Amino acid sequence: MNTIKKISSKEILNLLDNREFFSIKNSLNEMNGVDIATLFSTIPTEQLLLLYRLLKKDLAAETFVEMSPETQKELIQGFSDQDLEILLTEIYADDLADILEELPAGVVSKIISKADPDMRKDINLLLNYPEDSAGAIMTTEFISMSRNTMVSDAFEWIRTHGDDRKDVYTCYITDENRKLQGITTVREMLLQKNNIQISEIMDTNVISVNTHDDREDAARIFDKYNLHVLPVTDSENRLVGIITSDDVIDVIQEEVTEDFEKMSAMVPSNDSYLNMSVLKQVRNRLPWLLILMFSSIFTGIIINHYEAAFETLPVLVALMPMLSDTGGNCGSQTSTLIIRGMALNEINIQDFLKVFWKEFRIGFLVGVVLAITNGVRVMIQYRNLKIAIIIAITLLLVTIVSKLMGAILPILAKTVNLDPALIASPILTTIVDICAVWIYFKIAFSILRL
Amino acid sequence: MNTIKKISSKEILNLLDNREFFSIKNSLNEMNGVDIATLFSTIPTEQLLLLYRLLKKDLAAETFVEMSPETQKELIQGFSDQDLEILLTEIYADDLADILEELPAGVVSKIISKADPDMRKDINLLLNYPEDSAGAIMTTEFISMSRNTMVSDAFEWIRTHGDDRKDVYTCYITDENRKLQGITTVREMLLQKNNIQISEIMDTNVISVNTHDDREDAARIFDKYNLHVLPVTDSENRLVGIITSDDVIDVIQEEVTEDFEKMSAMVPSNDSYLNMSVLKQVRNRLPWLLILMFSSIFTGIIINHYEAAFETLPVLVALMPMLSDTGGNCGSQTSTLIIRGMALNEINIQDFLKVFWKEFRIGFLVGVVLAITNGVRVMIQYRNLKIAIIIAITLLLVTIVSKLMGAILPILAKTVNLDPALIASPILTTIVDICAVWIYFKIAFSILRL
Repeated sequence: MNTIKKISSKEILNLLDNREFFSIKNSLNEMNGVDIATLFSTIPTEQLLLLYRLLKKDLAAETFVEMSPETQKELIQGFSDQDLEILLTEIYADDLADILEELPAGVVSKIISKADPDMRKDINLLLNYPEDSAGAIMTTEFISMSRNTMVSDAFEWIRTHGDDRKDVYTCYITDENRKLQGITTVREMLLQKNNIQISEIMDTNVISVNTHDDREDAARIFDKYNLHVLPVTDSENRLVGIITSDDVIDVIQEEVTEDFEKMSAMVPSNDSYLNMSVLKQVRNRLPWLLILMFSSIFTGIIINHYEAAFETLPVLVALMPMLSDTGGNCGSQTSTLIIRGMALNEINIQDFLKVFWKEFRIGFLVGVVLAITNGVRVMIQYRNLKIAIIIAITLLLVTIVSKLMGAILPILAKTVNLDPALIASPILTTIVDICAVWIYFKIAFSILRL
Repeated sequence: MNTIKKISSKEILNLLDNREFFSIKNSLNEMNGVDIATLFSTIPTEQLLLLYRLLKKDLAAETFVEMSPETQKELIQGFSDQDLEILLTEIYADDLADILEELPAGVVSKIISKADPDMRKDINLLLNYPEDSAGAIMTTEFISMSRNTMVSDAFEWIRTHGDDRKDVYTCYITDENRKLQGITTVREMLLQKNNIQISEIMDTNVISVNTHDDREDAARIFDKYNLHVLPVTDSENRLVGIITSDDVIDVIQEEVTEDFEKMSAMVPSNDSYLNMSVLKQVRNRLPWLLILMFSSIFTGIIINHYEAAFETLPVLVALMPMLSDTGGNCGSQTSTLIIRGMALNEINIQDFLKVFWKEFRIGFLVGVVLAITNGVRVMIQYRNLKIAIIIAITLLLVTIVSKLMGAILPILAKTVNLDPALIASPILTTIVDICAVWIYFKIAFSILRL
């Protein structure tokens, strides 16, 4: 793997001590903004602004975007008006909007007051979309032209304005009301003569999303159609922004992390693990732990009710954890597959019966194997046929029931518009637990004739 | 959301019955390959080839790539030599390699025999890389030029050869041995005069990966540096391919699905849920279920050992599931965050002490809250101070221990080069279970003075 040249924070502090600014400038300007941001996170605040000012304008903006909110805040507080103006001409509106969301109000208004009217309008637009919407992740810097533009003029326009557009390779054709008419690409235009009108080569079948669509749906369409850029229109079909592949990758990663967190009984969060304070982590983890802890009272009640069973045969207690663990594992295997399948749009609510029937057969086969192997080992370990039979029958039933629960719960959640990841996974274990214990003692009671 | 015009399978079969081929042709050729492939999956085999031949060449190839392996196989078996030749000129080498991997050997050799020598070489190259390598997901159709190419010649080259390249907007500059020297983009070239040499505008700091690097690492670099395309070089730094954003999105989705499956105690699989047979599903799910089932024998042994405790106080049994469930939930909250953090490269092995100390504090705070609330409810429910104290102390300890286990296991797995998702999650519950039961009865024994 080849990443590009890097200078270490030790080297840079050494060079700073020797006031070798020219050498620092050269080294930094050969690096990538992402790596400079990582480097800057290790540099003391008082030296940060000095180093930042050694960067080329565009690289400075790139680096700024990649820094942590804390470093951004520190840096902005030392900014002169000129620093701020340079940043504002180089930064993309969507990146700036993301940054502003993390900064204190005072700093935000200082920045917005320095932005030119166009930028200010774009920023306000972007900040007003709901957090999970396509509008909130789009950028407003795209290339649009009218339908009678000549290919040669289109190239000329890209030459003069392309520098501050996030994507210059897709051109959107809009009418006088900014309504989206079609698209064409630089690739297509390169294959054409210069004196042809863009309307003759544009593709009028445009896949687009609305500003208020869920950003996850936008990412899904992007993925499904292998797009490189996806236009975003407002409720009147006016083109207001574009979504690019880097935005889509970020959305996918964030949504996946959210699903992981929900499936592990946590309140999801956008912060990274190491950046989140202990108290915030406690707040995110406690609610579900409390809910789940108290819901296992039901399991306790069932056990209390069947006390006679394990007073007669104490060994039944020793086998209980195996049964509920196996039930939990069986259920979460299924629910994970279903939740993930629904997230990828491979499984829909209409597939319910298919899924149900499939899980029944899988549960039956898996259950038979588990029942036989464990029945045999219990027979060997305790030399008691009754216990072996109780365990075998219970295992078979628990496996089937938990597989079916694992299939039903996520689909049910989706039907009533709840997030399957949130509802299905943490709750599943508790429900399966209750079922497992109940089945176990019911069968024990009838076989032991209590 | 605007997807583009679609014709339903009913409409198309109607038009077929009336032999209105012209109308079918028009409708299909306005659609997107992804949607046509979905449509074709509902069309009877005998009509498929007829419809396929109504598609424009490039759209036919696009559609073919998106079809299921079964449909591809059916279609290819009906292909004339001409059909095959058209497909081979329009399809990208990486897409073809993916398709060939799913087809029977006989069909594969029929296809390869029709490919031109260049394509055949590319295909053999792609098929030889390990499945999870960067080489296996790259495409071999990129644009490379020598350093003394003029910008005007570069544009001319793109005009004539761009049609069969997957990405035409990034130009790679290579020397006579195909070694990568630098890159430039169409955007950059549009801003330059035509009579300038490409070496003067190229960027020599190129981020690249090696063919044998893990595809997950390639995706991570792509994401980290917000790339649109990533060059792939062989062991001698010769440029052999490029990775584009659609490949990266696919890799991310597949790797995430794999992590989900491993964390739910399954053998991961590339097939989608609905396409996988019941028997294959059983095979993927059984191994871990058996391992975990038999490892809960240890929990059973501990319980057997402390039988005296619940013979004295049967209510202890009723509270056991709550304790192990809470322990399991606490542990999997932590392990999920750590596993995901490591997958996103946000947490490294060196952060071990930081993570350990953080989880200790979180575990302590969460444990205190759980211990107090549950101690109070046990006091109210059973009016027995001893039991309340046993439960409270156990909960506090179990919470701390399972949080620490959830932190240690994934990092330990990574240290010895095992997949944290596979090792940490399924095994965690069992270990936490054993700890919880052991702590519980130890404390019960000493408080009840047995």
